[in-house]
Amino acid sequence: MPDTIVISIDAMGGDHGPSVVVPAVAIALSRMPELKLRFLLFGDEARLNEELARCPAARPVCEVRPTTLVIGMEDKPAQALRRGKGSSLWNAVEAVKTSEAQAAVSAGNTGALMAISKLILRMVAKELDRPALVASWPTLRGASTVLDVGANVSSDPTQLVEFAIMGQAFHRAVHGVAKPTVGLLNVGSEEQKGHEEVREAHRLMRDGGLPIDYHGFVEGDDIAKGTVDVVVTDGFSGNIALKTAEGVARFVRKLLREAFTSTLRAKLGAVVAGPALRRMMDRLDPANLNGGPLLGLNGIVVKSHGGADARGYANALVVAANLAQSDYSTEINQNMLRLAEVMGREMEGRE
Amino acid sequence: MPDTIVISIDAMGGDHGPSVVVPAVAIALSRMPELKLRFLLFGDEARLNEELARCPAARPVCEVRPTTLVIGMEDKPAQALRRGKGSSLWNAVEAVKTSEAQAAVSAGNTGALMAISKLILRMVAKELDRPALVASWPTLRGASTVLDVGANVSSDPTQLVEFAIMGQAFHRAVHGVAKPTVGLLNVGSEEQKGHEEVREAHRLMRDGGLPIDYHGFVEGDDIAKGTVDVVVTDGFSGNIALKTAEGVARFVRKLLREAFTSTLRAKLGAVVAGPALRRMMDRLDPANLNGGPLLGLNGIVVKSHGGADARGYANALVVAANLAQSDYSTEINQNMLRLAEVMGREMEGRE
Repeated sequence: MPDTIVISIDAMGGDHGPSVVVPAVAIALSRMPELKLRFLLFGDEARLNEELARCPAARPVCEVRPTTLVIGMEDKPAQALRRGKGSSLWNAVEAVKTSEAQAAVSAGNTGALMAISKLILRMVAKELDRPALVASWPTLRGASTVLDVGANVSSDPTQLVEFAIMGQAFHRAVHGVAKPTVGLLNVGSEEQKGHEEVREAHRLMRDGGLPIDYHGFVEGDDIAKGTVDVVVTDGFSGNIALKTAEGVARFVRKLLREAFTSTLRAKLGAVVAGPALRRMMDRLDPANLNGGPLLGLNGIVVKSHGGADARGYANALVVAANLAQSDYSTEINQNMLRLAEVMGREMEGRE
Repeated sequence: MPDTIVISIDAMGGDHGPSVVVPAVAIALSRMPELKLRFLLFGDEARLNEELARCPAARPVCEVRPTTLVIGMEDKPAQALRRGKGSSLWNAVEAVKTSEAQAAVSAGNTGALMAISKLILRMVAKELDRPALVASWPTLRGASTVLDVGANVSSDPTQLVEFAIMGQAFHRAVHGVAKPTVGLLNVGSEEQKGHEEVREAHRLMRDGGLPIDYHGFVEGDDIAKGTVDVVVTDGFSGNIALKTAEGVARFVRKLLREAFTSTLRAKLGAVVAGPALRRMMDRLDPANLNGGPLLGLNGIVVKSHGGADARGYANALVVAANLAQSDYSTEINQNMLRLAEVMGREMEGRE
């Protein structure tokens, strides 16, 4: 474990750029007083210095690395690969490759981040095709691991199986569960439900002799129930599930606020219940869940929501710092290598 | 408007059958005391009579229509079409065709219900290909209409456009909004996001000259925000979004219950806040949202969740009764015919 944890930041990524990133650093520091943290901020020098001048708490631990090129939210991954070299996103990821930083964080274009990270850091095992974006989802039975939540737009059956392998390795490394159970997200639990991709992935996981503790199909409401440790889905459905859940959480916070200000009696109840109600509101704040790692890479890359505010972005920094200081990388790589090898053998054997 | 509203029920559908259906009738009666309601219960005569004997409130308004054949949850739609004639599901839908009932309700196999309803009732316009299942979704700005939430496993661009047309017609008929806005669910709002189907549907709705008040792409969190009146998506993603949201709502209810029993102070707060807190819990109960119509058919067919309890099933009966007593059918058919005609012309013009 390094003495000081260094996190490289794509400070131009996302909807807000430096005006969110710099205050987020200050918040992250206050949330992890026990860690020695440093941040490399890649982006527009003048804007970053301006923000740092306004934020004395962040200044001493930040180093500005000037870049001028910015990858836009509209750029396609292929364009980003061709023209993105030297951009804030590219250089933040490269700092992990050169070991200047232990983790990179970006709120930028997801497709570009995935493509560039894959190019620079490479996949941890040759059997793995593409990274997946992971969400840690609060459930009735602790946190579940849900992937892919948006790194890939569609996934063939083999990729879904890879997500299962990567998700298991992640869940074991982060949550210490020896044999995480895996479920495949579908529109019903019966055998014949869903489209061809999901049914073929189901057959592979059930009959493929793979080292997966496979539970079978799960449905959307199984996620929050915590029916399985790892929920596998394609990046399209996973992204919609995650964002829909965030929308519901925000909706409920609004309802709660209305309910407890609706009558004098309700207001009084809110005052009396005080701390319990505030804890509840806090648990429903999607900002506290922002930041998911891109799985399958030789290095830690954490994606923040493009629209995250400073509190949300700070959470992505906390996620990155926690992963960087844990044995996560070593352990997940070992898990993944072992599983990917077995998978490679089994998949070959099927041909 | 008929004097008495008659609802036909597939009493064998769903996880629980008559043991949920009969008590649900009693609950539905108590929730709609102003209506004259009658129910045709299709299913196992002995079991239904047994349940009715236990439920004196339901007995006087129920008529048992004996059937022996049951369509299983595992049956494929094609099997159900071939072998389903005379089943409780089939006969419940047929009662709408023969005008014995004004609406049918089933908690059975969604694919079978869709296929059989389409065969018996036919689509309202020849331009429409397949029915879609609709959810009315509570949002920060009233209710939104979300479809398809599971009638179809995948949808090509033309079908997504049809869902927009049907969703608009539904939203206008049920919520009285003259020109409902339509959004297409995707993983981002930028032009190049998502898979080919969703991008082609986007182009059709934006440039096709269709009578759609098209807003563009929306993301999962836009559903609960109420960004648009009608959210269009394929049945796979829509089903996952809906069930995920239900899971989150249940999770939050559990958290609330825990929060307000965690400390003596919190318990006291709950007592004081009383009615406001109970209203809140009620708004988060997915049972109150159970029951969505299959859109596009010549007749009202309402799908209940397979796992719904008596309170949830009663809600589906309320939905069916409300649609049956409104001008919904006439109005939606007029809307849909008009829109489908324009769509047919425009789509032809494109070729």
